[in-house]
Amino acid sequence: MRKKLKSLLIGQALKSTESESQKFNVFWGLPILSSDAISSVAYASEEILIVLLPVLGLASYKAMMGIAGAIVGLLLIVMFSYRQIIDCYPLGGGSYSVASDNLGRIPGLVAAASLSIDYVLTVAVSATAGTAAITSAFPALLPHRVGVTLFLISLLTLGNLRGIRESSHLFGTPTYLFIVSIVFMIAAGLFKVFVLKETPQPNPQLMRQQVGDVTTFLILHAFSSGCTALTGIEAVSNGIPSFREPSQKRAKAVLALLSGLVLIIFLGVCSLASVYQVGYDPDRTVVAQIAQSVFGRNSFMFYEIQFVTALILSLAANTAFTGLPLLLSILAKDGFVARSFASRGARLSFSNGIILLYVLASVLVIAFQGETHLLIPLYSVGVFISFTLSQSGMFKKWMTHRTGHWKHKAFINGFGALATAVTSVVIAENKFRDGAWLVLILIPLLVWLMLTIRRHYDRVRDNLVIPENGKELILSRPTKNYVVLPVQSINKSFVKALNYAMTLGGVIEVYHISTDQEQTDRLKRQYAQLNVSFPLVIEEAPYRNVNEVLLSHVDGRQRGLKEHQMLTVVLPQFVIPKWWHNLLHNQTSLRLKSSMVKMRNVAVITIPYIINE
Amino acid sequence: MRKKLKSLLIGQALKSTESESQKFNVFWGLPILSSDAISSVAYASEEILIVLLPVLGLASYKAMMGIAGAIVGLLLIVMFSYRQIIDCYPLGGGSYSVASDNLGRIPGLVAAASLSIDYVLTVAVSATAGTAAITSAFPALLPHRVGVTLFLISLLTLGNLRGIRESSHLFGTPTYLFIVSIVFMIAAGLFKVFVLKETPQPNPQLMRQQVGDVTTFLILHAFSSGCTALTGIEAVSNGIPSFREPSQKRAKAVLALLSGLVLIIFLGVCSLASVYQVGYDPDRTVVAQIAQSVFGRNSFMFYEIQFVTALILSLAANTAFTGLPLLLSILAKDGFVARSFASRGARLSFSNGIILLYVLASVLVIAFQGETHLLIPLYSVGVFISFTLSQSGMFKKWMTHRTGHWKHKAFINGFGALATAVTSVVIAENKFRDGAWLVLILIPLLVWLMLTIRRHYDRVRDNLVIPENGKELILSRPTKNYVVLPVQSINKSFVKALNYAMTLGGVIEVYHISTDQEQTDRLKRQYAQLNVSFPLVIEEAPYRNVNEVLLSHVDGRQRGLKEHQMLTVVLPQFVIPKWWHNLLHNQTSLRLKSSMVKMRNVAVITIPYIINE
Repeated sequence: MRKKLKSLLIGQALKSTESESQKFNVFWGLPILSSDAISSVAYASEEILIVLLPVLGLASYKAMMGIAGAIVGLLLIVMFSYRQIIDCYPLGGGSYSVASDNLGRIPGLVAAASLSIDYVLTVAVSATAGTAAITSAFPALLPHRVGVTLFLISLLTLGNLRGIRESSHLFGTPTYLFIVSIVFMIAAGLFKVFVLKETPQPNPQLMRQQVGDVTTFLILHAFSSGCTALTGIEAVSNGIPSFREPSQKRAKAVLALLSGLVLIIFLGVCSLASVYQVGYDPDRTVVAQIAQSVFGRNSFMFYEIQFVTALILSLAANTAFTGLPLLLSILAKDGFVARSFASRGARLSFSNGIILLYVLASVLVIAFQGETHLLIPLYSVGVFISFTLSQSGMFKKWMTHRTGHWKHKAFINGFGALATAVTSVVIAENKFRDGAWLVLILIPLLVWLMLTIRRHYDRVRDNLVIPENGKELILSRPTKNYVVLPVQSINKSFVKALNYAMTLGGVIEVYHISTDQEQTDRLKRQYAQLNVSFPLVIEEAPYRNVNEVLLSHVDGRQRGLKEHQMLTVVLPQFVIPKWWHNLLHNQTSLRLKSSMVKMRNVAVITIPYIINE
Repeated sequence: MRKKLKSLLIGQALKSTESESQKFNVFWGLPILSSDAISSVAYASEEILIVLLPVLGLASYKAMMGIAGAIVGLLLIVMFSYRQIIDCYPLGGGSYSVASDNLGRIPGLVAAASLSIDYVLTVAVSATAGTAAITSAFPALLPHRVGVTLFLISLLTLGNLRGIRESSHLFGTPTYLFIVSIVFMIAAGLFKVFVLKETPQPNPQLMRQQVGDVTTFLILHAFSSGCTALTGIEAVSNGIPSFREPSQKRAKAVLALLSGLVLIIFLGVCSLASVYQVGYDPDRTVVAQIAQSVFGRNSFMFYEIQFVTALILSLAANTAFTGLPLLLSILAKDGFVARSFASRGARLSFSNGIILLYVLASVLVIAFQGETHLLIPLYSVGVFISFTLSQSGMFKKWMTHRTGHWKHKAFINGFGALATAVTSVVIAENKFRDGAWLVLILIPLLVWLMLTIRRHYDRVRDNLVIPENGKELILSRPTKNYVVLPVQSINKSFVKALNYAMTLGGVIEVYHISTDQEQTDRLKRQYAQLNVSFPLVIEEAPYRNVNEVLLSHVDGRQRGLKEHQMLTVVLPQFVIPKWWHNLLHNQTSLRLKSSMVKMRNVAVITIPYIINE
């Protein structure tokens, strides 16, 4: 039943050897790994204008183009830096691997923690933004905002549990739809203005506005807001193992295509926003205003652009669903998170990581009641910290090894590290009061947690590992087994257990705890009738705490043994087919087992007796 | 830790032999078993007046005295009937025992079901009424009504878990306070009117009222409402085993005292209500109005009466806490409810029954949001059904055996059966639409449930019981044990398990499930180094479903055995001191055990390996 439901929801189980065919090529890898990066472009220009317009008025557009140029420059630096990482880390060059390889354990974990936080935020923010788009179209759903968001996240979770290949088609198509639509809009807009020479109407509101001074603070603030355009780029180098062979080559191709698309779309949107003198309107996004200017308010294309934007926003979350489980699986192999994150589910996806992401993002959405603007400031600090750490790691790598074109390469990564470090500081400072402080507290906490987990795994391994002279651990066979067989009444289940105990060939003690004299007398009579030679030991439990008395008896017997000898406790357990029938019986044997397993030298044997109904 | 908390809340554990000293004498038995019966008198006269006043006006008082006379007559009949039951059933003559003894299993269970429903309702209604009294004094608590009620029920539960003797002092004192106060009020009122000749002011509202006709329906309706005065009387004969020896004599004394008190208080309250022409006022109870007329609105005694009424109402629930667990323990011994209801807790009370009552009453209070008037109509049908069944049972007993003064005794019980049967029908008819229908549906449902449970226990017993030729079940010792020892990696835990398996002296198969070729190769190398002779069987799990593969392997091996032979599975299990560390490890062995225990011929042995931190 449970199995059927599972296969209905996520599909038939796949063999481990089918892993290769589940990986993706360039064509499907691009949309899968880029929806986050590309969708963030949709709101990056808006984030810049929100900062500039109130101060600079019409002069904002010139400043925005400058800032956009700087961000595109940063994009190129990051892209070239990541190409070098892909070359060096064929098994997935996430910031975690790069930083821990070259800078040590702690920087690696800092990178991992930063990225993990960002992945969870990506899902919560994107799904909320997607819901906002849906509720704009269907206002009746507004009161159920949180429910709709949770539903979206559930759909993404299911899609990802189904596995990579199927999800690439499911999630890839809308991304392509968005890319084509937005590029078409940019081309059409530029064509109308520069070829058809249509002159856009000047924005009357901005004409009248008082203009303030261009300050460094203002520019840096706008820059740090616009940097959201770069989030999501690290997904490609993280995801190398998800590509078909030659995976590094494919990953680099996807990275180049992705950067080109971000560049075109970001610059295109900024240019059109300048040309049409788009203002800030809480009810219409910048992209919506551009679409209206280019295609007209009631055109098909206006609605189409709105629709695909909504779609890609909800899908941006998917980048996190690819990235976080992969990151967790790497951390699990290194023992920094629970090992179960390293094992693949029935459909070969890292299902535990997917489910954890689902739970955390849902909790965030519920805790913040679907209010995006409270979550956004937490965003992007983490990404830039991990950018900085991975670029610094690469820089140190080239400076240490000094082989090949190391000077050239060190320059690229060093410059990348510097640029992203400055950006990190700018973002952290500008967003500190809005929530970035929370991230700056969470990161060391997560690092501490991961170190604690690792310490635990190390201790378990130290306990279990067999030393070099391990052969001596195999002992000669002891002459006798000491067996305790508890009994409350003589019945078939007890007789079966007694029969089994006799096969163990040891010293058997049949042990009864008396709470009721009458019952004990009956037991004695029946035991005598069985005509076996093993002693019946009877102990009183005046406080009726049968379990405690039994446990302390077993513990006493255990302590009387020689080293390396084991005491065997045989527990008859009758098994009832219907689960609810268990409510009618004391689950003594279960509780006993869980207590006895904590005794070092006690082996517990359960002998089932199946009750036929 | 858990143990300390337990002993702090309910006291030190008591020995089984201390049972006798926990039982009560007449002085403390009276308040313990009577708080329900006596407190119901407090509102019985009010229930009658609510029905009569709107129709009859001033003529209501005459009618009330007639009805009160009938109810007192019924009370005497019931009392004499119960004296005879106490004589015949020294081990507790609940309606269940009497009806099942003489009328058969189904009537007995109907009586048990009716009483059980009534006990749960008693707790819910009394605690709610007690809360109403508290919130009248402290209106600030009104919004927390449900919380206060649940708190009261929790206090009662704790008190009862502490055991009988202590609770008798805890719960007995307020009952005596109520009895003394109310009897003093009656005496003072009668003294003022008949000795001092103070003439009460006539009720102006009633003087002006139009007067309707006295109809049979009206009288029966008022009678059925007033019959709540009799609820709680059955507690005494149920509770015989809770008395010290000679328990029957003590129980009969308590029954007589109880009946006398009910008679005096009920008739006294009705008389004073007539004399003072008490009207119906939703804000002040009948008792409060009498207290005001006798002592004055601002007197100490007015507040004292209010206070002790509130107290006894919350304590009335205690009768149910004595009665239901005892009834359940008897039903459990007969196999109609889970056996665990028959065992005494650390303080010798039937703790499981007390806890069940606590849970059910709390659920009722939450479900009805503390609205008493919705629960009251469900009340008292059950009591009268069980009265009828026990009296009928006694009547049949005398008619069958015909010994001693059987004619006299048969007349008393027969008349009791007839009177309570008529009352049952009158109540069921008058309260049917208000909720009695629910009780009439619940009773057969509970009977069915109890029969199902008994059938299950019978089947288990049939499965387990050893037939007359039982000695043949002890088999000769088989020559070999077949042992399967699963392994995922070679470590100390595995070696310990292997050592143990070797002591079993059988055919050992070390069994590995491969999900990762690399891991398997390493395992093979390490196993070869151990230099033991047992075969290492390797099976592939292409779908990574290790547990399923292992279970089907064990099942296959099991099926290959001869009859009466067992397959032994040795499971190494490492034990981690801190519970949360278990989150970091797959709980495979636990899940495996619970699946394997369902296989008829598989003995599962867990070999613990304790991890030192």
